[in-house]
Amino acid sequence: MIDLNADLGESFGSFVVGRDAELIPLLTSANVACGFHAGDPRVMDRTVRACREAGVAVGAHPSFPDLVGFGRRVLDVTAHEAETDVLYQVAALAGFCRRHGMGVRHVKPHGALYNQANRSPELARGIAAGIAGCDPGLVLVCQPGTELALAGEAAGLTVAFEGFVDRAYNPDGTLVSRSIEGSVYHDPGRATEQALRMITEGTVVALDGTVVDVRVDTLCAHGDNPEAVAFLGALRDRLAAAGVQVRPLREVLAARGA
Amino acid sequence: MIDLNADLGESFGSFVVGRDAELIPLLTSANVACGFHAGDPRVMDRTVRACREAGVAVGAHPSFPDLVGFGRRVLDVTAHEAETDVLYQVAALAGFCRRHGMGVRHVKPHGALYNQANRSPELARGIAAGIAGCDPGLVLVCQPGTELALAGEAAGLTVAFEGFVDRAYNPDGTLVSRSIEGSVYHDPGRATEQALRMITEGTVVALDGTVVDVRVDTLCAHGDNPEAVAFLGALRDRLAAAGVQVRPLREVLAARGA
Amino acid sequence: MIDLNADLGESFGSFVVGRDAELIPLLTSANVACGFHAGDPRVMDRTVRACREAGVAVGAHPSFPDLVGFGRRVLDVTAHEAETDVLYQVAALAGFCRRHGMGVRHVKPHGALYNQANRSPELARGIAAGIAGCDPGLVLVCQPGTELALAGEAAGLTVAFEGFVDRAYNPDGTLVSRSIEGSVYHDPGRATEQALRMITEGTVVALDGTVVDVRVDTLCAHGDNPEAVAFLGALRDRLAAAGVQVRPLREVLAARGA
Amino acid sequence: MIDLNADLGESFGSFVVGRDAELIPLLTSANVACGFHAGDPRVMDRTVRACREAGVAVGAHPSFPDLVGFGRRVLDVTAHEAETDVLYQVAALAGFCRRHGMGVRHVKPHGALYNQANRSPELARGIAAGIAGCDPGLVLVCQPGTELALAGEAAGLTVAFEGFVDRAYNPDGTLVSRSIEGSVYHDPGRATEQALRMITEGTVVALDGTVVDVRVDTLCAHGDNPEAVAFLGALRDRLAAAGVQVRPLREVLAARGA
Repeated sequence: MIDLNADLGESFGSFVVGRDAELIPLLTSANVACGFHAGDPRVMDRTVRACREAGVAVGAHPSFPDLVGFGRRVLDVTAHEAETDVLYQVAALAGFCRRHGMGVRHVKPHGALYNQANRSPELARGIAAGIAGCDPGLVLVCQPGTELALAGEAAGLTVAFEGFVDRAYNPDGTLVSRSIEGSVYHDPGRATEQALRMITEGTVVALDGTVVDVRVDTLCAHGDNPEAVAFLGALRDRLAAAGVQVRPLREVLAARGA
Repeated sequence: MIDLNADLGESFGSFVVGRDAELIPLLTSANVACGFHAGDPRVMDRTVRACREAGVAVGAHPSFPDLVGFGRRVLDVTAHEAETDVLYQVAALAGFCRRHGMGVRHVKPHGALYNQANRSPELARGIAAGIAGCDPGLVLVCQPGTELALAGEAAGLTVAFEGFVDRAYNPDGTLVSRSIEGSVYHDPGRATEQALRMITEGTVVALDGTVVDVRVDTLCAHGDNPEAVAFLGALRDRLAAAGVQVRPLREVLAARGA
Repeated sequence: MIDLNADLGESFGSFVVGRDAELIPLLTSANVACGFHAGDPRVMDRTVRACREAGVAVGAHPSFPDLVGFGRRVLDVTAHEAETDVLYQVAALAGFCRRHGMGVRHVKPHGALYNQANRSPELARGIAAGIAGCDPGLVLVCQPGTELALAGEAAGLTVAFEGFVDRAYNPDGTLVSRSIEGSVYHDPGRATEQALRMITEGTVVALDGTVVDVRVDTLCAHGDNPEAVAFLGALRDRLAAAGVQVRPLREVLAARGA
Repeated sequence: MIDLNADLGESFGSFVVGRDAELIPLLTSANVACGFHAGDPRVMDRTVRACREAGVAVGAHPSFPDLVGFGRRVLDVTAHEAETDVLYQVAALAGFCRRHGMGVRHVKPHGALYNQANRSPELARGIAAGIAGCDPGLVLVCQPGTELALAGEAAGLTVAFEGFVDRAYNPDGTLVSRSIEGSVYHDPGRATEQALRMITEGTVVALDGTVVDVRVDTLCAHGDNPEAVAFLGALRDRLAAAGVQVRPLREVLAARGA
């Protein structure tokens, strides 16, 4: 079993981003922008409604406060600033979920906040505290072996691990930087095989050939990739053929005893 | 019985506004800014904590999105824009309340949003829908006889009515515009007598001498007034001498059968 | 002779809007967003550079401060607020023009600021003062017969009048509201004929058949219209066939003795 | 001869910061906030006017875009982002200066932008390019021996060096971090003596006793210090007694042949 997640609701006012309507039917989890890097109250409202109608679980996708930078630039915040910024964003999204008769299920930090929290214990601690302060039942989605994963566990959160299907891995389980040749796969076949291996064997072959253990509860599809829709469709077909069920994250976690 | 409310948490980042620490012990309800005209996640967090420690009920104080104008300028929004902006702000504050083991009790729109909703049915409807969408158990604080009061009732919200102690009234129960001589009282005695009359007789004497019926569940003290602290102390003494109890809004409403 | 203008540089950060690269070769004047409704310093820089390379005159396109509303909502500002907001935006754009060895030539207010200034003398006066305060040599682009045109003249600015080729007119020379059937033309032929008549005869046929006098120095092409590029090409061909020269606004104004 | 500078215009909307009216008569140069960490178009307008009336030279005080953090947090921007953000801010201020019949004289980056540019060649290069792109005649105010000073010189800008009177120095000429005991002087006498020694001998005694060479063209008085006004008065008296003239920065630089 595996969950499929993507970032949604990243439009802002008149500024339209992404192909949400096409992606939603292919997902089981949506990471919804909360206004700090994208998303505004109208976008949040209609994104949550669309997820509700499609039976897709809603998660929060909080960011550094940086609309013009789309949350892709590191801001040197304190743990307390991260905690309160995350709490604010997750709670705001929770309001739209309540309005539509559902709840926020998970939190996945966005962009530079996510990347920086992989290696900064302080930042990771702040993020985890913000999530737990809002609702200790929320699931933190992150990469295994990171500071963010450790901080989530220390804060008593359920932690779900995500894998990337179109990105090359380092031997330590981190992603190869986008600036390095071969870091991003353009071959759908290769990506699909990496996904399948992660799910069925719990391993990934790093760029140098090392076989690395990776537990994967959810796979991330980048919604801003123009081929994301076609790619997700192919992945779903391949997973079905291999007998892998695409299921909501809470079922995946329950099956793992998490 | 009467509730006493004031606007709190109107600092923003390094910009400090108000004398919250001195006001809190004198209040039973706080209207806490939610980031759109003032307030940021750190300010919201510490304001809610301070209210929690003092036993003051927390309400949301949503605004038009206008930090540089402090929410005092009318923005021509649709009902849906008002609804979603209010929902976002109230929900964000609710997160900080959950973190501190309490809930949001009421909502009082701020500044131009409050004033404009007195006379615009569309805007009032949007605000009421945003509050009800977040939590139908929230109390809407507004002036009696306004479009906002009507919209709140139509949306199924409990509506609490507020009176102003330092402002002159028109014969129709609205406030005399600040631009008119005599609209703002500078004499604490006069203000205290107006407060007492509103509570004990349910009437106010308008600027032209007309006696107007006004139901009052809560009295508003303007926290940005430099004399607010001294004034609130005097008011509390006078109310005590007259046998009026200052109690949380929910008790006042329960006593009225609201 | 006629000038052709369109709104450019309305992207913001990662949010991409418009087809600037295709529009620029067809224009003689660009109205460049200045950060309040769209545009950011990077977008402004590359838009000004592209205009410089194509020989297109650069104008400022200031707005109410309303990124999420794209400047399309009226904000109830004072004349002084409008003046200083306009001055800030025009001056910021002037910096990018200096960097690229050119100057700001004209100012055309955006969206709700433009529409509201047609009928509000206070707002119009503030806008005109902001433009004149920045540089009294700037040309104000607006519609004839409006409060904005009057305020521009009173402030000593050169005023250029613009006509709309794809919009129906009222008998008083104002535009028919978009909410009314027939207000927006979808037939390029009709739009082109209206343009030609405005230029060669100085008149437009209103929706009710009245022939209205309109002086037109520049024609506005809406860049957010998906057919804008094809339409502008057809208009240029038709104008050339009719012997109308498309020239920079300053030449058009000089020829008129303005 | 020495110039005295302070940060002014750091209010924002209704949020009031600083004691500008009392500081202005004591200064020869003002660093005026440009809207990214503080300051708004109204604040900029009245600050420039007040400087004009008092004969104080106006400089721009650009920042990272971080209103809620008051520009005190490092944002990981590219050189191009810094360049365009600085250009936008300096140019916007230049508009208010033109309106009041004066020009921007200098640029001093604010807060984290200033500190980070001391050690980041990339960031320093971007800042210098932004200043030069706006007006190559602008003076860059910074600390001697920093990457910012080098980048300013490489960009062809006149560079003026500033000294801090109430802060302890390291042996390499940098400031001792505020987190270290003794880094900030609370004794006006000690601060005044440090100022005098910097001006008359061109040296400062570091915290460890080392005598360090420092060229100083302007002294910075922190306006957010509650004692700044009293302190600046005392400094002026002491400088007068020692025969040091307080003169506009351009005269100080001219006397040094800069």
